[in-house]
Amino acid sequence: MAALPSAANSVTVRLIVPARATAVSELTSVVEQAGGVVTGLDVTASGHERIRVDVTLMTRDPGHADEIVERMRTVEGVEIGKVSDRTFLMHLGGKLSIESKVPIRNRDDLSLIYTPGVARVCLAIAANPEDARRLTIKRNTVAVVTDGTAVLGLGDIGPLAALPVMEGKAALFKRFADIDAFPICLDTTDTEEIITAVKAISPVFAGINLEDISAPRCFEIEARLREELDIPVFHDDQHGTAIVCLAAMRNALAVVGKRLEDVTLVMSGAGAAGTAILKLLLYAGLRNVVVADYYGVIHKDREDVVSGDHPNQAWIAENTNPQGLSGTLVEALAGADVFLGVSAPNILTGDDIATMADDAVVFAMANPTPEVDPIEAAKHAAVVATGRSDFSNQINNVLVFPGVFRGLLDSGSKVLTPEVLLAAADALAAVVKEEERNATYIIPSVFHPDVAGVVAAAVSKAALAAGAATAEPKPSASVAEPAPTTA
Amino acid sequence: MAALPSAANSVTVRLIVPARATAVSELTSVVEQAGGVVTGLDVTASGHERIRVDVTLMTRDPGHADEIVERMRTVEGVEIGKVSDRTFLMHLGGKLSIESKVPIRNRDDLSLIYTPGVARVCLAIAANPEDARRLTIKRNTVAVVTDGTAVLGLGDIGPLAALPVMEGKAALFKRFADIDAFPICLDTTDTEEIITAVKAISPVFAGINLEDISAPRCFEIEARLREELDIPVFHDDQHGTAIVCLAAMRNALAVVGKRLEDVTLVMSGAGAAGTAILKLLLYAGLRNVVVADYYGVIHKDREDVVSGDHPNQAWIAENTNPQGLSGTLVEALAGADVFLGVSAPNILTGDDIATMADDAVVFAMANPTPEVDPIEAAKHAAVVATGRSDFSNQINNVLVFPGVFRGLLDSGSKVLTPEVLLAAADALAAVVKEEERNATYIIPSVFHPDVAGVVAAAVSKAALAAGAATAEPKPSASVAEPAPTTA
Repeated sequence: MAALPSAANSVTVRLIVPARATAVSELTSVVEQAGGVVTGLDVTASGHERIRVDVTLMTRDPGHADEIVERMRTVEGVEIGKVSDRTFLMHLGGKLSIESKVPIRNRDDLSLIYTPGVARVCLAIAANPEDARRLTIKRNTVAVVTDGTAVLGLGDIGPLAALPVMEGKAALFKRFADIDAFPICLDTTDTEEIITAVKAISPVFAGINLEDISAPRCFEIEARLREELDIPVFHDDQHGTAIVCLAAMRNALAVVGKRLEDVTLVMSGAGAAGTAILKLLLYAGLRNVVVADYYGVIHKDREDVVSGDHPNQAWIAENTNPQGLSGTLVEALAGADVFLGVSAPNILTGDDIATMADDAVVFAMANPTPEVDPIEAAKHAAVVATGRSDFSNQINNVLVFPGVFRGLLDSGSKVLTPEVLLAAADALAAVVKEEERNATYIIPSVFHPDVAGVVAAAVSKAALAAGAATAEPKPSASVAEPAPTTA
Repeated sequence: MAALPSAANSVTVRLIVPARATAVSELTSVVEQAGGVVTGLDVTASGHERIRVDVTLMTRDPGHADEIVERMRTVEGVEIGKVSDRTFLMHLGGKLSIESKVPIRNRDDLSLIYTPGVARVCLAIAANPEDARRLTIKRNTVAVVTDGTAVLGLGDIGPLAALPVMEGKAALFKRFADIDAFPICLDTTDTEEIITAVKAISPVFAGINLEDISAPRCFEIEARLREELDIPVFHDDQHGTAIVCLAAMRNALAVVGKRLEDVTLVMSGAGAAGTAILKLLLYAGLRNVVVADYYGVIHKDREDVVSGDHPNQAWIAENTNPQGLSGTLVEALAGADVFLGVSAPNILTGDDIATMADDAVVFAMANPTPEVDPIEAAKHAAVVATGRSDFSNQINNVLVFPGVFRGLLDSGSKVLTPEVLLAAADALAAVVKEEERNATYIIPSVFHPDVAGVVAAAVSKAALAAGAATAEPKPSASVAEPAPTTA
């Protein structure tokens, strides 16, 4: 599948060219003939004889950018100056800043926000720890925690190299849900050390977003932290993906007129995302599902399942594939209503999709290259979705994690039961109104203004309801009231 | 020592009063008779018969505020509404926010700052970890780390109650040195667990500011982290205090015409601050010093020194008090040139200061109440300084830690040898020009615009010089160049 030129691979080329009328158009032609797209032309200096032009262009990848720059050199009289990569320029010094919300102009200000005034705020919290949710950043701050072992499509690149992704995640939390999020990249991959470190830093935070931590350690880390912390813990790669998949699936099945309870679904991938998606779909009503991983269809008699060394695969074998199919993904796909992939690139062809049932639904979400070319898949399936931004129906966790955490922070709840995930998915699905829904619009755009608020409200409500159902009676409030304040 | 009304104890009282000309002046009189100071009067609603007034006033403490509010009730026709405490209002939701420095307006932006564009930045860092200092927040971010065991004058209040102080510290880092600082409040007091946690979170940070961690654990924690991390680690309560003390001492001694090498100095307090101050003063040339702690003057034959259980006191005994004085602080003070206290409130009187040498210098820095009433001390000493903002010569770490970290971040050095601390102190002292220097101006105001820059430059230069003196040859740069960029 050929990539198209994209903004992600933008470069800005600074050139000195003769001041003749055709010089710039020659440059533009050269770029376009080479397969680039000019998105900006800025004359940054000018004289009688020559002008300096900054040309911004989209390319397919860095190699393509180099090729285009070389072709630009061939234009008569052109001198190439700097070549700046927009993505790298955007990252200089990182993507986040920590700002003071309070003025510090003079001694008065200092005495309120620091010593001695701050001491009274400390004493109020010491007397009543719940006040930290009102009087400190704990009200609105989430940690984005990784160990760098499963970053995007790059795998185990370590905590430092993972930091740009975590900064991006934090920027998205602020942009879409006004949540203050800070990146925590842990210099350890040991399960116990990760759990201990997150517990140690937890006082400042109202929630923990686990990110890009590889399976199977991520399951235990999330489960243990949920037990041992009194703030919500959410592994977005698991549950964010599950929620957005379910939401898109609701709408896709509505488009083709099928019900989740009736369809045969074949899934590829049994890692963090795959397992969580599977569990949520089962909770939502899916009955007929078969899961294939790298070794083929997972079934009860498979060696790794029988061995007891792979509890995840064992659980999957136990809860799917009642017919006991074995064999390959392609074999299992024949006659299926739905294909859902969170696995590897290019493992299916258009012909494989053609073996599916009529009105098939294909979610091919391997990142950045899907399991099947979506253009080929669309020749045979009714609805096709991927994780890519350059096709319709982008299934993107950005639709989920901001609203989920906003809802948890606003309700003060840590409850993330399947009911809560389901409520989030249904609320997200409903943002696409029935009259808007069609084969190319099954999930809102990440920039749809309603999404985060709708998801937050649904999560807040469901979390409180689920929590109330199981809550123990609260101990009576502390009698040590802080100094007079209506704050 | 009676406290004066201050902004740190401001309240805003909302009142409904009859709309007669004298109503407001009666309120103001009542406040002033009760010892408060009115700083603001705002009519927030008005009708023919009655007006609503928000009166902002400074009080001595919360009890005093309550008393004044009660007296205000006695004014005829007055109804008291809300009483809001300015300090608490300032703290609602905490004092920091985390902002995105990059726009996220559309899909293009998203593809640059998140997937897929961010992947190339990750790969560049994976290939060359040094690039993290250019391309992520590691360029400019410091962790403010505490375990809540020695917070201000409040002692062991725990990590959650310590958070407002750490937020304040972070706000000061931004205000005075444009450093992004994040509060890390650790839910453990175990030395090993603290060291492990800080190491685990270190990838994101360019420096660690340890804060409010009690002695003696703080010594080992700082030493071990300095060994095991490649970023600077600075316990401000130790070295920030030492640097600002030395700077003020330089100028105070210049005012009285004495040299550090010649004076007899008596110190009260052998905790984190005291020990660090002592070491820096000795390095700077001090020779005749005696240290007293809670148990009196520290000397070689004291039981705790002999026992070997108190290595800090043992070090002090070994390196001070060659005459082997024993006895009390007061006894040791007689005839001394300098008193320096980082200990407890009200342990000395004006008469004790009177026993010192002529042209005595008194630094009484116990917080919030000094070792001796500075007004009384000033009757007998030539130069008096405290940590308080309501007397001249405020010795305040805010003059040090922003510039120190700015210098370390700018130079990329982790070196914090005594030479570097000395350079910082001398640069800070020199901000007070010789023609400006006098008994009431031995240290600049924290708002003096030159301070952070001067300290940063001195630290940068000294750290690089000290580091170069001991540096091993650098390995050659990685040949795996990232994608074309002039960033």
